[in-house]
Amino acid sequence: MNALRHTISLVSLGTFQLVRRTRGQHVQGFLLGTGLGLASFSAVTYAHSAEAVNPKVKGVQLNTSRFMADPITDSKELLKDKDNMRHRMELLIMEIQAEFCRALEAEENCGQKFKVDRWERAEGGGGITCVLQDGDVFEKAGVNISVVTGSLPPAAVQQMRARGKNLKEGAALPFFASGVSAVIHPRNPHVPTIHFNYRYFEVETAKGEKQWWFGGGTDLTPYYLCEKDACHFHQTLKSACDEHDATYYPRFKKWCDDYFRIKHRNESRGIGGIFFDDIDSPNQEAAFGFVASCARAVIPSYMPLVREHKNQEYGNNERQWQLLRRGRYVEFNLIYDRGTKFGLYTPGARYESILMSLPLHARWEYMHEPKSKSEEGKLMKVLKNPKEWV
Amino acid sequence: MNALRHTISLVSLGTFQLVRRTRGQHVQGFLLGTGLGLASFSAVTYAHSAEAVNPKVKGVQLNTSRFMADPITDSKELLKDKDNMRHRMELLIMEIQAEFCRALEAEENCGQKFKVDRWERAEGGGGITCVLQDGDVFEKAGVNISVVTGSLPPAAVQQMRARGKNLKEGAALPFFASGVSAVIHPRNPHVPTIHFNYRYFEVETAKGEKQWWFGGGTDLTPYYLCEKDACHFHQTLKSACDEHDATYYPRFKKWCDDYFRIKHRNESRGIGGIFFDDIDSPNQEAAFGFVASCARAVIPSYMPLVREHKNQEYGNNERQWQLLRRGRYVEFNLIYDRGTKFGLYTPGARYESILMSLPLHARWEYMHEPKSKSEEGKLMKVLKNPKEWV
Repeated sequence: MNALRHTISLVSLGTFQLVRRTRGQHVQGFLLGTGLGLASFSAVTYAHSAEAVNPKVKGVQLNTSRFMADPITDSKELLKDKDNMRHRMELLIMEIQAEFCRALEAEENCGQKFKVDRWERAEGGGGITCVLQDGDVFEKAGVNISVVTGSLPPAAVQQMRARGKNLKEGAALPFFASGVSAVIHPRNPHVPTIHFNYRYFEVETAKGEKQWWFGGGTDLTPYYLCEKDACHFHQTLKSACDEHDATYYPRFKKWCDDYFRIKHRNESRGIGGIFFDDIDSPNQEAAFGFVASCARAVIPSYMPLVREHKNQEYGNNERQWQLLRRGRYVEFNLIYDRGTKFGLYTPGARYESILMSLPLHARWEYMHEPKSKSEEGKLMKVLKNPKEWV
Repeated sequence: MNALRHTISLVSLGTFQLVRRTRGQHVQGFLLGTGLGLASFSAVTYAHSAEAVNPKVKGVQLNTSRFMADPITDSKELLKDKDNMRHRMELLIMEIQAEFCRALEAEENCGQKFKVDRWERAEGGGGITCVLQDGDVFEKAGVNISVVTGSLPPAAVQQMRARGKNLKEGAALPFFASGVSAVIHPRNPHVPTIHFNYRYFEVETAKGEKQWWFGGGTDLTPYYLCEKDACHFHQTLKSACDEHDATYYPRFKKWCDDYFRIKHRNESRGIGGIFFDDIDSPNQEAAFGFVASCARAVIPSYMPLVREHKNQEYGNNERQWQLLRRGRYVEFNLIYDRGTKFGLYTPGARYESILMSLPLHARWEYMHEPKSKSEEGKLMKVLKNPKEWV
């Protein structure tokens, strides 16, 4: 598994670190970073020939051909101010989206591809929504990025104040938010669902000062418990965290368990992972590096599980159980998930992108309870009482 | 249709009015009431023989055999204080539940019956949940009554204050709530889903005074629009309203259109019906009579539609569209419905009864939009812009 993970890491290792570490120089195929080793890279390159085409670009050009679509911010803008965290984050999420979509497409047996929707938002910004639906391996897979600016409604400001943000009460405040998020619902019940989301936020306070923070997380929702998979998944996330701060994984693992709780059922949505918000320390550079490491750990944490189980046999019982658990997923997302709520209550929200997290099919049966000694019961035990995996 | 409605009314006309109007006398088979005519009755009878068995009953006994289960309140208690609105409401909802369950069972071709769960709540009270699942006509039908007492959490008090209730802020207040609610999801996409809920609420203010009110409504969610059905449904509700106050139907029809709105999609859940809350005028007797009329109009408004369409042909396209619309139903219930939220946030809530409103199956497709000239598009037009049916 570790060798496999390493191989995937090389593919998933993105291109963004290249950009931010080289700061406009023509670079060699070498990068520091997440400790996952060397990698070939091609998504973002500097081509001196661009100078002739457009002298304003000052000799560099963003090669966007490996992204799923053109960035939301104009490519020239993105390169002009490369130290700007908004731009750095946009390039990171573009890379994460593209790498993950390609990794998923590679697993489809009949060449199913993502449908790409690039959209703009009247209030400012936009996004790229990639959806693969009715694939033979992935029943519904959504990988979304968004880069939006606007005015934060007082209710959202209030919610942030409740979390300890020093913002003026009752006022609408200018904000910037960008992030990548994905939910993958595979067809085979032996392949878990994965969700991740990495985001960067800026709010301008009444005094015109800027508050910024990062948030995110990756979590797994299996239908059948495979302990080896659970350990691999958590270990991969832990390694990504440990590169930055040894206290991160235990704190963010617990945060994840607490967050993805279906309170009315007193059970977890899945077997957790990591979840964090309001990360603004030790400094912006380090916080961004941490988020980038986590985002790049998605592919090595998940794709080996897909490959191992995508052709495993299953019958109608397993399918029905999967659909019931997907019903629970819908319950969590629509009742408790802060991201979904924040999204749907934002004026001009693109609800299709927000609700792409919902499965193609879900089922609700009255009073369904699996036998405690069954495979389904074994999963339920872990969902009732989250455990330590590493 | 009117003749049919009248016939059904005779069956549905309950037994409760008998009890409240006769006030303990031995009565004749005659009742005033909803203007639907005479009715035979048998659910609640006074049997002088009971006196010998238990002299405390003072000569009367409640025949509960036609209910789905024993009432939540002890039968003797229910009879002892027959003027008590809590008891009158409990008898009404028991009757409504039983009549509706029997009417639905009568449509099943293979004799499928409701599963009956009588449950008690540690905090006080309980309920009777009746579910028919995987029937040949009804894919999932839930008819629930509950009679609960307890302490209203400050958040719920706050919500009621926001609606204009004169309640003390920040305090937990003793409350009583009883109601009947049902959601019926038929298998055939040409048969609409129906939902209704009628409830009675009491809260004790900090000064020990009692505030009471009624709420409720009935609404229809078709998958294919049949204008004749829509008119019949609304006309039946309007007639029930008009017996009490000519201003009720137009007000409560609009309230229903406003309430059952899936805001993020800017579309209605269905074609509406009536919806009201906080009814505490002109007096308790009249308010109860109005609610009873509405509750008794459910069967005549809906059952003719079931009979007319339950054997209508349909194919996979119609089924898939029905599942998509059921996904929208889930969105409304989990994101916006006040009853669901209030229920799930109530400590000790029986979530299985609250979530029985969810369909057996639902589907979410990214960016699905029917052609405007299709039958599906015809429905969407009415969901986007609610219209007047009578």
